[in-house]
Amino acid sequence: MKKIMECVPNFSEGRDQERIDRIVRPLEEAEDVMVLDTAPDEDHNRLVVTMIGTPEALKETMLKAMAEAIEVIDMEEHSGGHPRMGAVDVVPFTPVRNVKMEECVQTANELARRAAEKLDLPIYLYEEAATSPERENLAHIRKGEYEGFKEKIKEPEWEPDYGPHKLHESAGATVIGARMPLVAFNVNLDTEDVEIAKEIARRVRHSSGGLRYCKAIGLELEEKGMVQVSMNMTDYTRTGLYQSFEMIKFEAERYGVDIAGSELIGLLPSQALFDVAEYYLGLDDFSPDQIMENRLLEEL
Amino acid sequence: MKKIMECVPNFSEGRDQERIDRIVRPLEEAEDVMVLDTAPDEDHNRLVVTMIGTPEALKETMLKAMAEAIEVIDMEEHSGGHPRMGAVDVVPFTPVRNVKMEECVQTANELARRAAEKLDLPIYLYEEAATSPERENLAHIRKGEYEGFKEKIKEPEWEPDYGPHKLHESAGATVIGARMPLVAFNVNLDTEDVEIAKEIARRVRHSSGGLRYCKAIGLELEEKGMVQVSMNMTDYTRTGLYQSFEMIKFEAERYGVDIAGSELIGLLPSQALFDVAEYYLGLDDFSPDQIMENRLLEEL
Repeated sequence: MKKIMECVPNFSEGRDQERIDRIVRPLEEAEDVMVLDTAPDEDHNRLVVTMIGTPEALKETMLKAMAEAIEVIDMEEHSGGHPRMGAVDVVPFTPVRNVKMEECVQTANELARRAAEKLDLPIYLYEEAATSPERENLAHIRKGEYEGFKEKIKEPEWEPDYGPHKLHESAGATVIGARMPLVAFNVNLDTEDVEIAKEIARRVRHSSGGLRYCKAIGLELEEKGMVQVSMNMTDYTRTGLYQSFEMIKFEAERYGVDIAGSELIGLLPSQALFDVAEYYLGLDDFSPDQIMENRLLEEL
Repeated sequence: MKKIMECVPNFSEGRDQERIDRIVRPLEEAEDVMVLDTAPDEDHNRLVVTMIGTPEALKETMLKAMAEAIEVIDMEEHSGGHPRMGAVDVVPFTPVRNVKMEECVQTANELARRAAEKLDLPIYLYEEAATSPERENLAHIRKGEYEGFKEKIKEPEWEPDYGPHKLHESAGATVIGARMPLVAFNVNLDTEDVEIAKEIARRVRHSSGGLRYCKAIGLELEEKGMVQVSMNMTDYTRTGLYQSFEMIKFEAERYGVDIAGSELIGLLPSQALFDVAEYYLGLDDFSPDQIMENRLLEEL
């Protein structure tokens, strides 16, 4: 059975189709890599590519795509709504199948080392690949963005993990790392009072006392006449979807508010939903090997 | 994406390892076929093989395995605890991926036609492949077993669907068909009173007024000091696992009995558990395309 990772590179070009094509081409053409989604955003002036493949193939094709991106993107001329510090802004690797987190960390390191050498690019490692606690958080690393980094990179504590101790003159710097797949999970509440969603989000999320691997905000859904607790589950293997769901349910009870439904946005690993079924059915001794499709995947 | 079916042939030999090996060898060696389980049973004197593969490959390799089985098994000398009417007793095809039930029916018909011609074997079609309502039920077809079939096959209403109008002199007759995958789902009750499990099984199963695609019996689990509602879900796409689970829960309430847990036995399709998660989380607009592994399977 092949090792399969997901890689979701973010490039700082979301408007010029010709440039986007040049960046995406090596990814599309790579063997043992499957591009699942290509999402350019004009407002953000940013391109997010979602792909899966073997670690080796992802690494090789990412090197090519990074070289293209650095050739076509000039950060001196870049503007957009999303924070960014480089032409290749961030490259996370996540485990999908038959792969441990440590192997994602290793792949992130190998890509960082080779890209730094080949492209003369300063590179920071983040999340599980971080070399110090201060570098775990992407937003913290990226603070100051491309413009501010010209000075920030000179500070001793911001010496890059790989590559030169100065910003690339047109491509800035890149953050590469390893993390669990994010599961975007939203729960809708049968009320128009957004304060209730905000208060429940505060209760359920890690940063204000809630579940360890849950980020949450409260939102209005104007068209539906409802409000939503919008979550990013940052490690579904340790904080299950059912945990945040049940927690939202019991918090909503105090307001006499019902849950109107929920939604999963984008891709997620099957195990995140198997865990939900396992909880609600009270399954004993369930193994993912019992899933027919998992047997099929062993053939890959 | 390849079409994938499951095929679970039952052969009337569960004791002689040399014979078992001869039957299984063509299945093991076939390309585009993956044997998931080989389960010989000495008491039943029966061999159950679980495999998945492309329709064409399954059909070709089954023809070879049937020829082997007919060569090594003599039904005149066969005895065992499980009802049976032939050396190759029953061969069901079930849809797994990218395949419709009609295609399983077609594959069953093609195998039946070719095996009848090549092996001079009378063949009946059952379940979704049945040519009349009386032939849908396997137990009904097989009634009288090998010994009784010598006379039964002469009755006009038991003319085989394919092959000669008389029993094969050493291999009997074979039943081939198409059905949904069975999901074996057991729910344990926190009581030692087996009558409660039996009464709940009566309520939940189709045959006595319950759910359309649910078979159920009540059992004692002596070692655990509990009882169990043991179910076969015969079409999880139409009667969901959560439906039988919730029904058992509300039936158990009237006895003041709690559910102690549940278990899934053997293989099942991932969708059966996605449906459970979808129900309990109240998911709107969930699509199996959102599951990463399903994207991987598209490559097969």
